[in-house]
Amino acid sequence: MSKIENEIQGVIDGILIDYDKERDIDKLDALCEPDKKMITNTVDQLIRVVYPGYFKDRTNRYYDIKNCMTVVMEDVAFRLNRQINIALRKECDSENAEKCRCGSICARQADLDVMSETITIDFFKRIPEVREYLETDLEAFFDGDPAAESLDEIILAYPGFYAITVYRLAHVLYELKVPVIPRIMTEYAHGQTGIDINPGATIDKYFFIDHGTGIVIGETTNIGKHVKIYQGVTLGALSTRGGRKLQNKKRHPTIEDNVTIYSGASILGGETVIGHYTVIGGNVFITSSIDPETRVSVKNQELRFDSGSVEEIEANFN
Amino acid sequence: MSKIENEIQGVIDGILIDYDKERDIDKLDALCEPDKKMITNTVDQLIRVVYPGYFKDRTNRYYDIKNCMTVVMEDVAFRLNRQINIALRKECDSENAEKCRCGSICARQADLDVMSETITIDFFKRIPEVREYLETDLEAFFDGDPAAESLDEIILAYPGFYAITVYRLAHVLYELKVPVIPRIMTEYAHGQTGIDINPGATIDKYFFIDHGTGIVIGETTNIGKHVKIYQGVTLGALSTRGGRKLQNKKRHPTIEDNVTIYSGASILGGETVIGHYTVIGGNVFITSSIDPETRVSVKNQELRFDSGSVEEIEANFN
Amino acid sequence: MSKIENEIQGVIDGILIDYDKERDIDKLDALCEPDKKMITNTVDQLIRVVYPGYFKDRTNRYYDIKNCMTVVMEDVAFRLNRQINIALRKECDSENAEKCRCGSICARQADLDVMSETITIDFFKRIPEVREYLETDLEAFFDGDPAAESLDEIILAYPGFYAITVYRLAHVLYELKVPVIPRIMTEYAHGQTGIDINPGATIDKYFFIDHGTGIVIGETTNIGKHVKIYQGVTLGALSTRGGRKLQNKKRHPTIEDNVTIYSGASILGGETVIGHYTVIGGNVFITSSIDPETRVSVKNQELRFDSGSVEEIEANFN
Repeated sequence: MSKIENEIQGVIDGILIDYDKERDIDKLDALCEPDKKMITNTVDQLIRVVYPGYFKDRTNRYYDIKNCMTVVMEDVAFRLNRQINIALRKECDSENAEKCRCGSICARQADLDVMSETITIDFFKRIPEVREYLETDLEAFFDGDPAAESLDEIILAYPGFYAITVYRLAHVLYELKVPVIPRIMTEYAHGQTGIDINPGATIDKYFFIDHGTGIVIGETTNIGKHVKIYQGVTLGALSTRGGRKLQNKKRHPTIEDNVTIYSGASILGGETVIGHYTVIGGNVFITSSIDPETRVSVKNQELRFDSGSVEEIEANFN
Repeated sequence: MSKIENEIQGVIDGILIDYDKERDIDKLDALCEPDKKMITNTVDQLIRVVYPGYFKDRTNRYYDIKNCMTVVMEDVAFRLNRQINIALRKECDSENAEKCRCGSICARQADLDVMSETITIDFFKRIPEVREYLETDLEAFFDGDPAAESLDEIILAYPGFYAITVYRLAHVLYELKVPVIPRIMTEYAHGQTGIDINPGATIDKYFFIDHGTGIVIGETTNIGKHVKIYQGVTLGALSTRGGRKLQNKKRHPTIEDNVTIYSGASILGGETVIGHYTVIGGNVFITSSIDPETRVSVKNQELRFDSGSVEEIEANFN
Repeated sequence: MSKIENEIQGVIDGILIDYDKERDIDKLDALCEPDKKMITNTVDQLIRVVYPGYFKDRTNRYYDIKNCMTVVMEDVAFRLNRQINIALRKECDSENAEKCRCGSICARQADLDVMSETITIDFFKRIPEVREYLETDLEAFFDGDPAAESLDEIILAYPGFYAITVYRLAHVLYELKVPVIPRIMTEYAHGQTGIDINPGATIDKYFFIDHGTGIVIGETTNIGKHVKIYQGVTLGALSTRGGRKLQNKKRHPTIEDNVTIYSGASILGGETVIGHYTVIGGNVFITSSIDPETRVSVKNQELRFDSGSVEEIEANFN
């Protein structure tokens, strides 16, 4: 017998015993957890529903796209309902009693069933509204980016457009007070795009993100119409050293209509308001409000220029 | 019957009716769209062709890798040809008549068939040249990064090397004037790496990207030989508020041979030229040309130091 | 016959001939390469082992999660052992003789078999320790982020928590001197999160990453307990123009206990030490040591404010 055959069972037993320490990272009662993979699959399906015809079905061939979409929507409704049910039940079961919203009857599965079905139906009812918003975003993307060849290119390839799509879907579930699932959805988009939009943010129509990698939009941010944001922009909190005491407070800024924020700028704080039609230049760091119709830029970044032979430059450069 | 069973069909019908509003986001004639999943699968296969032996085949076992690669290449040629055909047809059908390149005979499928087959063959003919460039990139990566253990590690694990590989393949299709597909390819790499290289950029041999997350290289950028770029660098446009009027103009900078650009630097504008052997320091923000053999750095970032007990620091911070 | 049928074989033959140039990018002896897909699958399985019950099994249904985890661990042990074996053999075969660690008997497969099995067992023995560290990280994430609804949300959705998990697993293999595999593991997490932690870095308990996109933590970085890091932070080398001569030198900073580093800050250099309880503000660029209990911030970023009508702002901007 090889070393591994001899020893592996003992080592595995050690890990199984370690599972019994009742750590927070162990969920031995696994059937009650939301299923991340199921939720991200649901996001993939919802994108097909929102942009019918753009994303192919690998399993079904069809003549009439509406028949196909009907099947997809029924499937999404079934699976989303189940995940919402699990997520609600977990919240009820938690020690965090103040967040529980079914009160003393929390343990009664029948009530949770009605709640999750009501939320699922309400979510689907709002899909046409989500599509109306996304249509305006598409227009903003095309108008804003000279590199865009066609509307199709934006829907099929642009990460910023993908991130805003997933955010708008997740935000509806956030508004319907579904726990955990909205954040799994936006972090799924974050993973694919580098764009981190918290599902709690509110973003009005005609939103445009260019390039996008590194963008952070915090939970209590408010964004108006026709706002443009470039890569590396943070709309964040001033400090989170207050930790959990800050929960549910407005910690992130308000951006009014027609504001443009260039790459690398940081705008921080819950009382910070950027007035309409203002332009924030690249790398600007702002922690207080800016008047409307203002152009803010970094004044004279002082640069140092040293010339010399290549060897000198390399020797000196750190 | 549960609430969801009672109501879901009505809600779905509402969404199906919403599809009839002829929005830009609906493509009910779905069979004529490029297939994103097919295109990204093609990228995966092309990477196996470019680095034979590095990436395993899950479906076929083989004794002679050349037999295996022959099968892969035939498959890629078949599928890529079909996607190019669809992409060309869409362009012809579009209202954007000035971009149509088959003129009055555009509707004739036979002409499109010849065009897409010619492009597919031309693309494959250029693969040895792409491999010649990538071999030089590999050398630049190994020489530039003290953390690289081996060439294999770079090919198997480095996101920067992956991004430049996909860019070089997509750039050939861009030069062959294929619509939509090159951008889907580079955005696929962008999603996996955080590195956004527009397929229209031109990049010479021995290109090195370190870490890479947050890099943006715009459509009309020109980059010479032996250039090194670090994470968070933007080679961008000065302003895109001109929107679509700027299409096809040189909007992004020119980087000459042997330039190094450290993390977080931004170099903007179509007339900006960074001379050969110049070194651009971290976080430098440049909107005009720099002479060759110059070292540019931020002069005295003025820092403020406050000391005190931990409680004071936390209380004062922000 | 179509153009493509006529010509494709000739073009493919050209590429096959190109494979015979013995470039570094060709591995025609493919069976001896580590299998990237197998390694990333192993990461997925290890995450299920580390957080039992959180991530579902698609193939097996089970009543007792311990039975399921036993099967998963045996499978991981088998596959990881095989990949380690291949990675060790490659190193022995390489011309890079000084790195070979089985000396003159290197060619003897039996020795490699014992080495890889020993490493695999040692790796599994350390999983409870890894889990102990991750439990402290989870606590740090919950305490640090007011937007976190629950511990589950952090485990299921937070990219920073995912990145630190994969790093802690890869770091064990790095310490056990496994080539290539640790880096493939952390780059897999980098691709999904935008967070680039080199497996060689050492990171103590209670580590917190917020948002995370764009973070770079270099190979020789040392990080103490209770450290918090935000998006876009670089813990990097001063210059890598020394290239491969710098290999194995301490090139990256040391961060002592209870330090907080806000978004976009860069801390560079192997001799740079950030003292305990220090707070580094956003966008600070540091290349030398900072005393303990200090608050460092950018002094007066001078901003320029221009007001006017919207047309003027747009006309003047850039």
